Amino acid sequence: MINFEALFNISYGLYVVCSGDKNRGNGFISNTVFQVTAEPAKFATCCNKNNFTAEFIQKCGAFSVSILNVNASSEIFGTFGYKSGKDIDKLAGMTVRYGDTGVPIVINDSMAFLECKVVQTVDVGTHLIFIGELVNAEILDDIQEPMTYLYYRQIRKGVAPKNAPTYIDKSKLETREKDLLLKKYKCSSCGYIYDEDTESVKFADLPDDWVCPLCGAYKSDFFEI
Amino acid sequence: MINFEALFNISYGLYVVCSGDKNRGNGFISNTVFQVTAEPAKFATCCNKNNFTAEFIQKCGAFSVSILNVNASSEIFGTFGYKSGKDIDKLAGMTVRYGDTGVPIVINDSMAFLECKVVQTVDVGTHLIFIGELVNAEILDDIQEPMTYLYYRQIRKGVAPKNAPTYIDKSKLETREKDLLLKKYKCSSCGYIYDEDTESVKFADLPDDWVCPLCGAYKSDFFEI
Repeated sequence: MINFEALFNISYGLYVVCSGDKNRGNGFISNTVFQVTAEPAKFATCCNKNNFTAEFIQKCGAFSVSILNVNASSEIFGTFGYKSGKDIDKLAGMTVRYGDTGVPIVINDSMAFLECKVVQTVDVGTHLIFIGELVNAEILDDIQEPMTYLYYRQIRKGVAPKNAPTYIDKSKLETREKDLLLKKYKCSSCGYIYDEDTESVKFADLPDDWVCPLCGAYKSDFFEI
Repeated sequence: MINFEALFNISYGLYVVCSGDKNRGNGFISNTVFQVTAEPAKFATCCNKNNFTAEFIQKCGAFSVSILNVNASSEIFGTFGYKSGKDIDKLAGMTVRYGDTGVPIVINDSMAFLECKVVQTVDVGTHLIFIGELVNAEILDDIQEPMTYLYYRQIRKGVAPKNAPTYIDKSKLETREKDLLLKKYKCSSCGYIYDEDTESVKFADLPDDWVCPLCGAYKSDFFEI
């Protein structure tokens, strides 16, 4: 018997994983970055085969990991977590550094970053695990705590996007988490209802300049129902 | 440039990963348990090739993951983290269930567990990554929070044992973490000094029935110097 709610007890951080170069790069929000060996220091990250970033990592043979702080903005999650680099240039407007391998490194809302050279790629079905040797690691901010997946889910009310290895179809959940996940917001101007159950983006993660698709009212004109 | 202190910002939980059967099983403390695909749900765990448990996982083709709660006892860490199953039967005296695959599942101090059937084994150098398909998942306690590696390091003052993928040779660290790690305890009875710098076990993680190797005084007779 599988109780999918048990899976929420596995701990993860939240990261922006990037690849590419100065001409064109892309990144996505990842919760699966972990160290796999100490000598030498090697890190694994898990990436959906459909993620645009997977193509960049395979082409460039390197990736960066920006470790998000606990106060990371909704914009970061909105841009890197719920949009595709096939549609927009996610790095436009971000503060970006370029690493020794040439990959972009997102500095916004990050407390530290790693840069890794891919040494192994493992096909695990819907996802690829990229294993990279650490070539660069720097602390950007040593005051804040790192953002955890638990905090993102419980306090920020975020959900895993469809491409995440931890995505859980809501029909598989029982009561507690289901209640936590489903919310509706109503536009006080025209009555339009934003139903998180049928949308791919949590209301809280919509950009601040998002407007009601019906009447153009501001996000702040919506209230939870 | 690699600042190894940046690596402490990667988030992990803490788990007892077990394998074997009713006749003989073994387990170790792991911080690297991650979901790698959602459909089907597959999990990865990283295990040092020298870990006794690695032999069991390879032989049995399955493993269990007990998700430790934040109040997990020092005995759990002492037994599963700093001792070898080659020397003792780690499961003796523990509350153990046996899963569908036959593997032992440690219930002590656990808030949930997973059981996985190995579908892939990846050699990443000093370690093996076992990738298993989820066959069983259960919540044992839904009140506590899961133990995180950050909490274990900062609040419980634990360190990664040598076989951990996140083990960091202290000489690689700069100031902050180094100070945090090194402590000495003196026996008030005979003056014997327990120096964590030369020992493999943190003083706090020594079992309660540990005694001074020189005079046999109790652990509680030691004070930090």
